[in-house]
Amino acid sequence: MTVEIICVGTELLLGNIINTNAAYLAEQCAGLGLSCYYQSVVGDNRSRLMETVKTAIGRSDIILMSGGLGPTQDDLTKETVAEVLSIPLVADEHSRQRIAHYFEKRGMHITDNNWKQAQVPEGCLVLDNENGTAPGMIVEVGGHHIVMMPGPPGELRPMFENSVRPYLQEFTPGVIFSQTVKICGVSESLVETKIEDLIAGQENPTIAPYARLGEVHLRVTAKAADEKEAKKLIKPIVRELKARFGGDVYSTDADTTLEKSVVDLLLAANLTVATAESCTGGMLASRLINVAGISESYKSGYVTYSNKAKRRLLGVKKTTLTKYGAVSEKVAGEMARGAALFTKADVTVAITGIAGPDGGTKEKPVGLVYIACQVCGKLMIKEYLFSGGRAKIRESATACALTQLRRCLLEYCGSRTFGKEKN
Amino acid sequence: MTVEIICVGTELLLGNIINTNAAYLAEQCAGLGLSCYYQSVVGDNRSRLMETVKTAIGRSDIILMSGGLGPTQDDLTKETVAEVLSIPLVADEHSRQRIAHYFEKRGMHITDNNWKQAQVPEGCLVLDNENGTAPGMIVEVGGHHIVMMPGPPGELRPMFENSVRPYLQEFTPGVIFSQTVKICGVSESLVETKIEDLIAGQENPTIAPYARLGEVHLRVTAKAADEKEAKKLIKPIVRELKARFGGDVYSTDADTTLEKSVVDLLLAANLTVATAESCTGGMLASRLINVAGISESYKSGYVTYSNKAKRRLLGVKKTTLTKYGAVSEKVAGEMARGAALFTKADVTVAITGIAGPDGGTKEKPVGLVYIACQVCGKLMIKEYLFSGGRAKIRESATACALTQLRRCLLEYCGSRTFGKEKN
Repeated sequence: MTVEIICVGTELLLGNIINTNAAYLAEQCAGLGLSCYYQSVVGDNRSRLMETVKTAIGRSDIILMSGGLGPTQDDLTKETVAEVLSIPLVADEHSRQRIAHYFEKRGMHITDNNWKQAQVPEGCLVLDNENGTAPGMIVEVGGHHIVMMPGPPGELRPMFENSVRPYLQEFTPGVIFSQTVKICGVSESLVETKIEDLIAGQENPTIAPYARLGEVHLRVTAKAADEKEAKKLIKPIVRELKARFGGDVYSTDADTTLEKSVVDLLLAANLTVATAESCTGGMLASRLINVAGISESYKSGYVTYSNKAKRRLLGVKKTTLTKYGAVSEKVAGEMARGAALFTKADVTVAITGIAGPDGGTKEKPVGLVYIACQVCGKLMIKEYLFSGGRAKIRESATACALTQLRRCLLEYCGSRTFGKEKN
Repeated sequence: MTVEIICVGTELLLGNIINTNAAYLAEQCAGLGLSCYYQSVVGDNRSRLMETVKTAIGRSDIILMSGGLGPTQDDLTKETVAEVLSIPLVADEHSRQRIAHYFEKRGMHITDNNWKQAQVPEGCLVLDNENGTAPGMIVEVGGHHIVMMPGPPGELRPMFENSVRPYLQEFTPGVIFSQTVKICGVSESLVETKIEDLIAGQENPTIAPYARLGEVHLRVTAKAADEKEAKKLIKPIVRELKARFGGDVYSTDADTTLEKSVVDLLLAANLTVATAESCTGGMLASRLINVAGISESYKSGYVTYSNKAKRRLLGVKKTTLTKYGAVSEKVAGEMARGAALFTKADVTVAITGIAGPDGGTKEKPVGLVYIACQVCGKLMIKEYLFSGGRAKIRESATACALTQLRRCLLEYCGSRTFGKEKN
């Protein structure tokens, strides 16, 4: 079975947004072992959309479409597909109710054009949209399978996960199975150098590195008759990668984020945590709190952007601020200690730095950040220099804070396991 | 003249990389006033590439191609184009010398397959590659213009800037100029309903709505001989949109985010701000602090995820927590008042809610969020119900907090302007 991807949207043709849906869907198809030979982008234009759909039907078995399912007049994906296949659009009661409920829940007024989203090609398979009002649809005709999904990635991805992938699974020849080895705190080039020999001449399984902010993910993929066999092929490679990167591997589980791996360590060691942030301004707290279950461990967090706040909320000494400056090892340390003192948390993380664009000097350039982690009284402070704009510097600092905290926790747990006394 | 974009590369079909070239080229074409109706991606496969090129020639005047110009055997863009147009490939002496020079400069040995890159379709226009060995090419035949550029963005973009844009300029009817009217706190369908009459039968300028989290952006685009004339066409439409959406329009400036518009109001009114967050856990503070210059206004922020923290850091009453629960109008109010009391900030925002996936009940479902804004003693509390996963609920709550804060600030400034006494 061959797949073709069609993304609908004038904003794509105008280059206003980057087509991440195409990359996501293509990656998913590859993962399913389905061959994708064509991707295309077409605007919200009836005749050109018709031509594109016809061409796709003429050369591909499965057509994945994204976008053009909204309530507005220029959304015409399903209308056009229905026209090409000469299938009438009918009202889907189930979708009507979901839309009504969606607006009720928000106490919002339903405008007439919303009901347009409850119209579906007769006899199609309707896919619920957990994150919006536009349902997805699968039309099966003459051995072709046309899948229509909403354009916003936040709606498309969950719908693909929950409904489309299971549907496509039936059509896959054998399986392609992947496992991702997630590494933090090691540069992409260093990771690649360390696995050069494994990548050279690899066939099945294959190893593909993907760089993420502050992380590198190594995707190990095997093709086999069934999942059991594929897993058997993958296992030794994953073991080898774990051996080479040791403690820098934070997870091999697809759903585990770096923050989740940190929270898991905190909960396992029964440690409470508090955060004190200056330049990252709550970004670290926000990432930690995105992990459900953190409530067991998270005590509280401070956003102390100004010197006054650092003094008042964390007890940073005025003399330290004047002598060393707000962005210094000393201040980071006092922030972490202060947070521990005031919150009684076992673990505290403090971040202070210069996110820019202004405020940099020759001695203290934009991007200079100090991160202090204190675990049960043991303090570790590191200096970093990040590049990029204000947002990227703040995101990098947050990622490195999680990595540094993770290392401190592993060390603490390790020392504890070996019965050492923590200083 | 119509343009079509063809990106060649198996890595795009596998979803290993995101197609930023397509977005870049599309945006450039729009800026030049050239209409682009199709984008496609095809792998390094002779027959499928031929089919794609033939289709493009059949419907577009200018074809911009990226990728497949490398030295390896599976790079066959120019070979295929030459075959489709039955033009022979010939050695280009100028390119041979550049390639030789490129390797010399780096003291690298030239492998035979590198000379493949000096082969070009006879009579084509050769475009120097300042950042690599593969030259670009423009083939003109039968009123069609086929532009071939290397795939790496670091090579493609400079080549487009230096050679392709000047070449395309000849064919441009004028310029396309856009301005975006950014609206917050109004649903996409309601926005659409309010401007139905403007969109119906629109030609030049056009209005296109783009939904963002908690926002809708209306992009007004005009085609004209020059930018001055285009701006003249856009002005009345933007004025009309501002009139229809009034205070819900937070900006018409491309670089102004919702948080920046809020920070601008704070600074203009010389007001200090503090945040108190439960379920959003620092996300609101983080968005505010992403605005450079916030330091003038931001006092401090609290992440009070636990009841204990709400009581200890914000002085929320134990009885209020037990009687109404942590997720309640009352607690949100006490959080905002407490933050004002402890920080002396003129403005405080408090958020408390259930982000899920657990913790929801029939009376208080997952997604229920209370947001309290206090501006100079005047408190406004609103109830929201958001859908989606934990992350989306937290992001929606943060976006709505910014919108609510913005409205309170406008009201305060308005009342102040009219010399009213604030209660």
